[in-house]
Amino acid sequence: MQYTLGDIARALGAHAEGDLSLPITGASEPAAAGADQLALAMDPKYADGLSRGGARAAILWEGADWQGLGLAGAIFVARPRMAMAGLSRAFDPGPEIAPGIHPTAVIDPGAEIGIGAAIGPFVVIGRGARIGMGARIGAHVSVAEGAVIGADCLLHPGVRIGARVQIGARFIAHSNAVVGGDGFSFVTPEKNGIEMIRETLGSREEIRPQSWTRIHSLGTVEIGDDVELGANATVDRGTVRATVIGAGTKLDNMVHVGHNVLVGRDCLFCAQVGIAGSTRIGDRVVLAGQVGVSDNIFIGDDVIATGATKVFSNVPAGRVMMGSPAVKMTSHIEATKNIRRLGRLFATVAELRETVAKLSEKA
Amino acid sequence: MQYTLGDIARALGAHAEGDLSLPITGASEPAAAGADQLALAMDPKYADGLSRGGARAAILWEGADWQGLGLAGAIFVARPRMAMAGLSRAFDPGPEIAPGIHPTAVIDPGAEIGIGAAIGPFVVIGRGARIGMGARIGAHVSVAEGAVIGADCLLHPGVRIGARVQIGARFIAHSNAVVGGDGFSFVTPEKNGIEMIRETLGSREEIRPQSWTRIHSLGTVEIGDDVELGANATVDRGTVRATVIGAGTKLDNMVHVGHNVLVGRDCLFCAQVGIAGSTRIGDRVVLAGQVGVSDNIFIGDDVIATGATKVFSNVPAGRVMMGSPAVKMTSHIEATKNIRRLGRLFATVAELRETVAKLSEKA
Amino acid sequence: MQYTLGDIARALGAHAEGDLSLPITGASEPAAAGADQLALAMDPKYADGLSRGGARAAILWEGADWQGLGLAGAIFVARPRMAMAGLSRAFDPGPEIAPGIHPTAVIDPGAEIGIGAAIGPFVVIGRGARIGMGARIGAHVSVAEGAVIGADCLLHPGVRIGARVQIGARFIAHSNAVVGGDGFSFVTPEKNGIEMIRETLGSREEIRPQSWTRIHSLGTVEIGDDVELGANATVDRGTVRATVIGAGTKLDNMVHVGHNVLVGRDCLFCAQVGIAGSTRIGDRVVLAGQVGVSDNIFIGDDVIATGATKVFSNVPAGRVMMGSPAVKMTSHIEATKNIRRLGRLFATVAELRETVAKLSEKA
Repeated sequence: MQYTLGDIARALGAHAEGDLSLPITGASEPAAAGADQLALAMDPKYADGLSRGGARAAILWEGADWQGLGLAGAIFVARPRMAMAGLSRAFDPGPEIAPGIHPTAVIDPGAEIGIGAAIGPFVVIGRGARIGMGARIGAHVSVAEGAVIGADCLLHPGVRIGARVQIGARFIAHSNAVVGGDGFSFVTPEKNGIEMIRETLGSREEIRPQSWTRIHSLGTVEIGDDVELGANATVDRGTVRATVIGAGTKLDNMVHVGHNVLVGRDCLFCAQVGIAGSTRIGDRVVLAGQVGVSDNIFIGDDVIATGATKVFSNVPAGRVMMGSPAVKMTSHIEATKNIRRLGRLFATVAELRETVAKLSEKA
Repeated sequence: MQYTLGDIARALGAHAEGDLSLPITGASEPAAAGADQLALAMDPKYADGLSRGGARAAILWEGADWQGLGLAGAIFVARPRMAMAGLSRAFDPGPEIAPGIHPTAVIDPGAEIGIGAAIGPFVVIGRGARIGMGARIGAHVSVAEGAVIGADCLLHPGVRIGARVQIGARFIAHSNAVVGGDGFSFVTPEKNGIEMIRETLGSREEIRPQSWTRIHSLGTVEIGDDVELGANATVDRGTVRATVIGAGTKLDNMVHVGHNVLVGRDCLFCAQVGIAGSTRIGDRVVLAGQVGVSDNIFIGDDVIATGATKVFSNVPAGRVMMGSPAVKMTSHIEATKNIRRLGRLFATVAELRETVAKLSEKA
Repeated sequence: MQYTLGDIARALGAHAEGDLSLPITGASEPAAAGADQLALAMDPKYADGLSRGGARAAILWEGADWQGLGLAGAIFVARPRMAMAGLSRAFDPGPEIAPGIHPTAVIDPGAEIGIGAAIGPFVVIGRGARIGMGARIGAHVSVAEGAVIGADCLLHPGVRIGARVQIGARFIAHSNAVVGGDGFSFVTPEKNGIEMIRETLGSREEIRPQSWTRIHSLGTVEIGDDVELGANATVDRGTVRATVIGAGTKLDNMVHVGHNVLVGRDCLFCAQVGIAGSTRIGDRVVLAGQVGVSDNIFIGDDVIATGATKVFSNVPAGRVMMGSPAVKMTSHIEATKNIRRLGRLFATVAELRETVAKLSEKA
């Protein structure tokens, strides 16, 4: 992958100055950049690094004096992270998976493999599965019977796709992610302790022995276009209908999505988020790392929950949530401040008590 | 799998009315049900869905007017989720694993494979391992030397069973679950920071450089009958004795059970629960999603901990726990209310202070 | 592995008494020990177990009366867990991986495999990868193009090493761990909700539709010598530079280390810890189970965070942190106590109010 400085500027829709024919083979931090690398110096704080590195070209903040920085050419961007998206895509070699089907792969004769697919060693594809055009499937992936994956998917080594799962185009799944495990759904012949405390908020008349009978998962998983799934993430199948992940939603490593959950479009769930069964989540919801969401609740569109927030009840659209139990961010910040001031409050009340006692004596 | 309405009623031990010879090939939500599917309408709120769907038969709440709902037959149940267990088992096709041993599987000549086992592509089974009768083992599973798994187990693709692990009958493990990794156990030559702060509750005389020496795990894992393990869950081996999971216990996706932990029978641990090393957990304990339990403590029988509860000390049998640090559910609800009322309390005390100051002046 | 009692004493640098020629084939809990096993009874509380077991030799606490305990020989240690390290290493058989390269392994002709390596069934090693001398690589492992792993590594079944990852000597990775997945990094064309609430602490002028553009990960992962990684743990690659894990650091099961994170030497992160992107962590930092650390912050050397602590801002060196949001352990204990005393405080203030009201009337 070699480009000129001008190629990159055009691809980013950005303004460039200097020698637009400079060859560029990659991108780097300013201090580590070589002569044919584009230094990423989108903020004045990187000027110093630039002088230590060997770059002849850089992406700079708007208004920077590229000649004064000793460069032969520069690209100027207003929104650096957006530029990084285009730039990193251009220079990402992607995983090496040889074109065609590796001779060790075990592909059911009834499976359909799209044109241009690259399928790695020891891949297993079941009866009636359909893999889209241009798919890239890494080593040791298994795709079970009847699963359908859209065009241009990228499954990293060790990904598991369960039976009858339906996935849209451009799906990316990182290593050892699992789509379509059974839901965690068990029942006791008589009312059990969990059902009881949900009604009584914690008190229990009687504790009976109980053992668990399994509810099997007949439903499947439906995933829209442009979804990404992190390493070791899991999405369970529904009980009767499908668990659904909307188009454009991105799930990070070790995110868990329980059975029957409906997730909207363009959501972002960071690492180790867990969504319990049958919960509905709107569009563009952002859950930071380690957020937990209870079962059978509803989270509206555009909700944001900050790191480690635990959501136990419905959240209306647009709200920013924080804490455990989750409350509005402003309420949580207030509550945290109040807790920090408690020591002083106890002291104030003790003093008041003394003063009042004295006043009472006098009165 | 085709049954008649009468077959299903008999299997569920439930009362049925109408045309018991209706053929049923599956179950569905009421609004999506086809003519040969059983609509799952166990609550009056589903009546509307029934009228939109095409089902001729349904499971209904007790006392429902099946003829008025336009059905040709119906089954009536008192405890709908229990009926779902039987029904979903009947219609679950299970994963397709061809009978016999796939030619690509690498099975040590010293391993024993039970009668009727189905072993998928690229499975690896080590020296002296014993796999029970009727086992179903999916693609890419590895079972290490000396491991023993009981009859009728189901190991989904990518499951890892470590050396000398002992597992009972009817074990189900979802994809990429790992049983028998080494415990996380390290020691420093001299007393380290963790040991120090456990004694002093947070203050440290002196901070010394320290590096970690590994304690190897010589113990194994013992799992009872009828245990289920979710996708990407992990159960570590013990240091000298075994880590134990009692019969009937169900662990959801990404549950972590540390070394030397003893878990009782018929427990339910939801997704992303973590149990630290050497803790003992009684029977029928229910831990909701993202619960954490410290090392070296004891949780009594029938304890329930609600979502994201963090348990740092022993819990007596039967208690319902909530919050971090975990306290009795009732205390936690009280504390949460008190925190919410703090703003008002600060205001009240400020007013009091003013009133008392004035009174003091007068006195 | 058979040793004499004297061999073991010498290996541990410990004092022994009695018959030093006693053959020892393993170690066990006192009550379960057989005649050729060393009973682990480093504390007087195990004396009773010793009398029930069949051991003829034991490791005892200093000053114990080995003859009175009915033993033929004994080793005496001052720091039992340190002795366990040496002892468990001596008796750990390790996983069985046959010497040489298994005929089913798919190894790129351009990969270099070190002398004495043992490579299991169905392993896949990519172009230009380099595996150190004495490596042991279990079944179904994949090592992608250009990855380098030092001498004497041990990769358990199903481990995934991504392209160009660099790893030092004596690396241990447990099953299904993933090194070098892509970072979770997305950008919107215009300022998005997360950026907005970081500035406003929770209030949002306007909610706009947004979808996510991917920032690809061009960086890699660099891991020092003597690092261990638990089952299903994940370490993501950096955006431009590498994600770094320092020498001697140990990560437990399901630990997540985000893109661009820098972790120092000799750290210990317990199960289910998550570190968000671009955070820097010093040396000898200990994070207990389920700790979360925000993105783009700094944790100093020798910090300790107790279980389930959530760290949202920089922490200076040497501090012991607790709670969510994390504060100094002493402050957290104080705050927890204060919250428990709130019920009484509300009552006291209510009484005061009444008294003051009466006084005001009189005045």
